[in-house]
Amino acid sequence: MEIHQVKQALVLTSRLEDLGHLPIKVLKSLSTGATLVAMDPIDVKPGDWVFTIANSAARDAAGDKRLLTDLTVGGIIDDWQPE
Amino acid sequence: MEIHQVKQALVLTSRLEDLGHLPIKVLKSLSTGATLVAMDPIDVKPGDWVFTIANSAARDAAGDKRLLTDLTVGGIIDDWQPE
Amino acid sequence: MEIHQVKQALVLTSRLEDLGHLPIKVLKSLSTGATLVAMDPIDVKPGDWVFTIANSAARDAAGDKRLLTDLTVGGIIDDWQPE
Amino acid sequence: MEIHQVKQALVLTSRLEDLGHLPIKVLKSLSTGATLVAMDPIDVKPGDWVFTIANSAARDAAGDKRLLTDLTVGGIIDDWQPE
Amino acid sequence: MEIHQVKQALVLTSRLEDLGHLPIKVLKSLSTGATLVAMDPIDVKPGDWVFTIANSAARDAAGDKRLLTDLTVGGIIDDWQPE
Repeated sequence: MEIHQVKQALVLTSRLEDLGHLPIKVLKSLSTGATLVAMDPIDVKPGDWVFTIANSAARDAAGDKRLLTDLTVGGIIDDWQPE
Repeated sequence: MEIHQVKQALVLTSRLEDLGHLPIKVLKSLSTGATLVAMDPIDVKPGDWVFTIANSAARDAAGDKRLLTDLTVGGIIDDWQPE
Repeated sequence: MEIHQVKQALVLTSRLEDLGHLPIKVLKSLSTGATLVAMDPIDVKPGDWVFTIANSAARDAAGDKRLLTDLTVGGIIDDWQPE
Repeated sequence: MEIHQVKQALVLTSRLEDLGHLPIKVLKSLSTGATLVAMDPIDVKPGDWVFTIANSAARDAAGDKRLLTDLTVGGIIDDWQPE
Repeated sequence: MEIHQVKQALVLTSRLEDLGHLPIKVLKSLSTGATLVAMDPIDVKPGDWVFTIANSAARDAAGDKRLLTDLTVGGIIDDWQPE
């Protein structure tokens, strides 16, 4: 799993049906600064530090293994102090 | 999931049968600038900003889990402003 | 598998239920210096050098393939001397 | 999927049985310059630009999901002009 | 698949049971110089150039899909001349 900071919700003009109804969030990686996109079953807010779960476990983490995700928010980190 | 900009369609002279009939697009990664290739079930256009779904979910995203893909376009992002 | 050094336990204020009850640890990658997060079925301590198992094998390594992990501690390395 | 240029065939002195009888090729990544190894069901030649399919789809792409591959050549790209 | 050079065996003071009895080797990546860890069903020696198989195919490559590995040695490369 990796640590990310939440930036914003992602607004889509066109999307696949099996993305379901969970919000999709834009995240920034702690380690690389890369911008990534994750499903969010926890309702995280911009500025929150979260950890994310990738690949097959991401689908179960989203609550339904048919959901089309490879990255899902798994929890909010308490009082993270980036170095 | 990651954010990419669509560059062009990929023209193939020889391909495996189970690639199916979806268009295959060349994408450029927002985070790394890397060139990647994805199946496109949405019909995206050059210049569009899209997000992509990787690995096992990519096959379901393409509409048939027998399809040979590890990266599929999942949606078009509205009004993306790259930094 | 990769080699990591254990930094600390991860404290979560909100988490998905299927994360189970194993401790979750913050690790630092030997190769890249990146910060990662892993489930810990072995009870490793800060400063330990460990190797980690990723993706589908990570779920079995955590002891239950329903657990939501993509990275699990697999063993403690004896007397590792980083270069 | 990613774009690679074919360098040469890989000659092995010892190999696992379930690698099957497809040729194994050394490829160079367009994006990173990294050297990778892929199964080749298409019979590509040194200098060809190809795209490759990774992970679980790579096994189906090789024609038999028991084959031990995580990267398989999926098609030859027509008239690729690297930038 | 990727190309690695074998460095040494990995000595573990504590390990999960389902790692089985295959030796575990420390490898150095040809492309990135990164240090990785792989199961070794072939009995490779320090200095050997090998190619490795990742993710789900790694488990079958180790001879038993219950084994906890995400990287397994797949063959010894004949007369590899690193550039």
